[in-house]
Amino acid sequence: MTQSVLSRADDNLNASLERLFELVRIQSISTDPAYKGECRKAAEWLVAELVSLGFTASVRDTPGHPMVVAHHEGGKPDAPHVLFYGHYDVQPVDPIELWDTAPFEPTIKELNGSKVITGRGTADDKGQLLTFVEACRAYKETAGSLPCKVTILFEGEEESGSPSLKPFLEANAAELKADYALVCDTSMWDRDTPAISAGLRGLVGEEVVVTAADRDLHSGYFGGAAANPIHILTKALAGLHDDQGRVTLDGFYEGVEETPSQIKAAWETLGLTAEKFLGEIGLSVPSGEKGRSVLELTWARPTAEVNGIWGGYTGEGFKTVIAAKASAKVSFRLVGQQNPDKIREAFRAYVRSIIPADCSVEFHPHGGSPAIQLPYDSALLNTAKSALSDEWPKPAVIIGMGGSIPIVGDFQKMLGMESLLVGFGLSDDRIHSPNEKYELQSFHKGIRSWIRILDAIAA
Amino acid sequence: MTQSVLSRADDNLNASLERLFELVRIQSISTDPAYKGECRKAAEWLVAELVSLGFTASVRDTPGHPMVVAHHEGGKPDAPHVLFYGHYDVQPVDPIELWDTAPFEPTIKELNGSKVITGRGTADDKGQLLTFVEACRAYKETAGSLPCKVTILFEGEEESGSPSLKPFLEANAAELKADYALVCDTSMWDRDTPAISAGLRGLVGEEVVVTAADRDLHSGYFGGAAANPIHILTKALAGLHDDQGRVTLDGFYEGVEETPSQIKAAWETLGLTAEKFLGEIGLSVPSGEKGRSVLELTWARPTAEVNGIWGGYTGEGFKTVIAAKASAKVSFRLVGQQNPDKIREAFRAYVRSIIPADCSVEFHPHGGSPAIQLPYDSALLNTAKSALSDEWPKPAVIIGMGGSIPIVGDFQKMLGMESLLVGFGLSDDRIHSPNEKYELQSFHKGIRSWIRILDAIAA
Repeated sequence: MTQSVLSRADDNLNASLERLFELVRIQSISTDPAYKGECRKAAEWLVAELVSLGFTASVRDTPGHPMVVAHHEGGKPDAPHVLFYGHYDVQPVDPIELWDTAPFEPTIKELNGSKVITGRGTADDKGQLLTFVEACRAYKETAGSLPCKVTILFEGEEESGSPSLKPFLEANAAELKADYALVCDTSMWDRDTPAISAGLRGLVGEEVVVTAADRDLHSGYFGGAAANPIHILTKALAGLHDDQGRVTLDGFYEGVEETPSQIKAAWETLGLTAEKFLGEIGLSVPSGEKGRSVLELTWARPTAEVNGIWGGYTGEGFKTVIAAKASAKVSFRLVGQQNPDKIREAFRAYVRSIIPADCSVEFHPHGGSPAIQLPYDSALLNTAKSALSDEWPKPAVIIGMGGSIPIVGDFQKMLGMESLLVGFGLSDDRIHSPNEKYELQSFHKGIRSWIRILDAIAA
Repeated sequence: MTQSVLSRADDNLNASLERLFELVRIQSISTDPAYKGECRKAAEWLVAELVSLGFTASVRDTPGHPMVVAHHEGGKPDAPHVLFYGHYDVQPVDPIELWDTAPFEPTIKELNGSKVITGRGTADDKGQLLTFVEACRAYKETAGSLPCKVTILFEGEEESGSPSLKPFLEANAAELKADYALVCDTSMWDRDTPAISAGLRGLVGEEVVVTAADRDLHSGYFGGAAANPIHILTKALAGLHDDQGRVTLDGFYEGVEETPSQIKAAWETLGLTAEKFLGEIGLSVPSGEKGRSVLELTWARPTAEVNGIWGGYTGEGFKTVIAAKASAKVSFRLVGQQNPDKIREAFRAYVRSIIPADCSVEFHPHGGSPAIQLPYDSALLNTAKSALSDEWPKPAVIIGMGGSIPIVGDFQKMLGMESLLVGFGLSDDRIHSPNEKYELQSFHKGIRSWIRILDAIAA
């Protein structure tokens, strides 16, 4: 049976691509309220697709962007029940002028000898979630059903902190609970080697606004006597790291454990040097904590990063102004047992401690989730590893992940479900950046990989 | 004669205001190339006014915004020849949403019990330069001529570093040379007390752009290993001041002398406490160098200020990005003999010294001018002091000035002219900020003050 389903997926490929293009054309930027209607449109498009595959599917309203929930009974009643998760929302596209082709007009083109699908969301996460939908289609069209019971949950707020997700999981726990979750929002190790992510960093997002005078000031009249909020903010941000690259917040490293030496050794055999990893993005010197490999730094160590900063005059020319306000967006990547709430409080206490008495500071939280570490001996993980190894040129590897997928923690905590993190992105997919792309091979073999994984899970 | 000229100015007041409104309505923002046409329009409007007063006047092209040059022979051939300087360009108006009335639709309204003229440029410098033009008008209409030979120079790039000014002075030195320069771009001590500024801080402007990776990065994939240019920039900017508020650049205080104790004592009698000075703008704690009065800090001490900063994601919501670039606009206020070129070089060398090997930095200069200190015993200064004291409720005072008027240095260096700095602004005029205003009294008594000063100079 597997072979005929795989062949069906091959035959469907052009039509599958057409469907991906349709979804990418929908400008579902969740962080910007101007695109609210587009987010709903993406949800409605997905519901229509799933209904056409025999799912019971619906758009489910939330205080933010809607969820998509769908159910399909499998052919074998005793096979496990899986919940598949993806997100239909995408990141903003600025700076728009750096895109070679329009972000919401997907194309296929040759890039460094392989065919790629260009456009915002092709890799993160529309192309990825459709690999599963198209795997279901090939199954349905060949076997008349799916090999196991499948629930699907697509959210539309993953790129903006998922504010509606927890309440939705809580309110719909019974409906969403399955034996395992399958999450497709991660990357391959390289173009020949599939990967399963067993560790994920957590995330705390904070926006900080420092206010000094009650208006913008002329730097001639007031400069030297009046507080400058940009000075205060830059001082606070510059103090977040010591000269060893460690984060200076009180208690920041509570709950951070050293990575076991056998794991570090396995990562070393992957042969990813700092030169290779950073060379791809035009850099060469590892930043952050001294004396650690780039894989350890990005998979197993916590960080503090300023993601945006603004204040004063930023237009053409020059304006000799002392601004009234200065702002920054700051995020912390968490590992191990670091507590997001404690980290947020430590950051706020630190900033407050350096604000002069006549100035003020406001904080706006932007999401928080702890890190996740899956057990290395899980049966699900080993089943999937073997299925993936059958599809790709090289065997699958178990890796860590620098990014944050808060849903995985929520599935564990709220629904008691282990998650299998399998994705087909590549590190040069430029997700969150101009010229995002997804390899045609990722899409095609991604569909085939899910057919093999569903088969193995149902066996 | 003086009394009839003053009466004429009083009779003209409504028509003078109408003319000021016309000039304020022209959106001559020099720093933004989008307003190039409006700058020219302001220059042409001024030429037409001056021609109507019997000046030989013309718009004079430069590589930037045009100059206005005008000449008028005086009634007394042996009286001194004066050059009057002002600028017709204005600052940008952002943040536009904080204006109570539209910045380019001037109105007259009551504010704290006095009548004020609202609008961008009313105080800086359109209202001020018209006090002189309207003084000339009252003279012309009463006496048929002016009391002395007058040359006028209006520039349109004062708010954007005056790039065309030096070449223009050099090319037209013979035409512009006079016995004294009169510069109207400064403030009163308070609403009853006129002031003559004997010291002016210099200014060095720099834009700095730090580049790390060759693209924006996902902070999950790369955070902890890839350099973040916002971190580098904030570290550089935070290091500009030590914990005593002193600027840390190598050689920064070369050429800075302590203010003579009798001058400091005179300033102390003015009774401006930190509470009063800073209270006006919602602050209370003097920033900058410890242990110095606010007048000393703003009139006689050099500063380093960040006037703008930007990098990464600054829109709605959150984006977990590590930016490719981060930028800041930085300015230094200079005093005494500080050398602008040396300060600029010291800043660049300092920033370069903390840029990691795989990152880069660019600098863009935005103007530079040394500080000016006029002799306290100048005859011109004392003549004007006495004329002003006749017009206003309290005698004129000799003060310092925190702002920079590069033209004063250029007049001294290039044309060998001493400048008399008299202006009628108030410290709460909100110049460079939303809701800029100019007191109706400043405009009216300003016109009368110039009549008295011209009379005294020609006597």
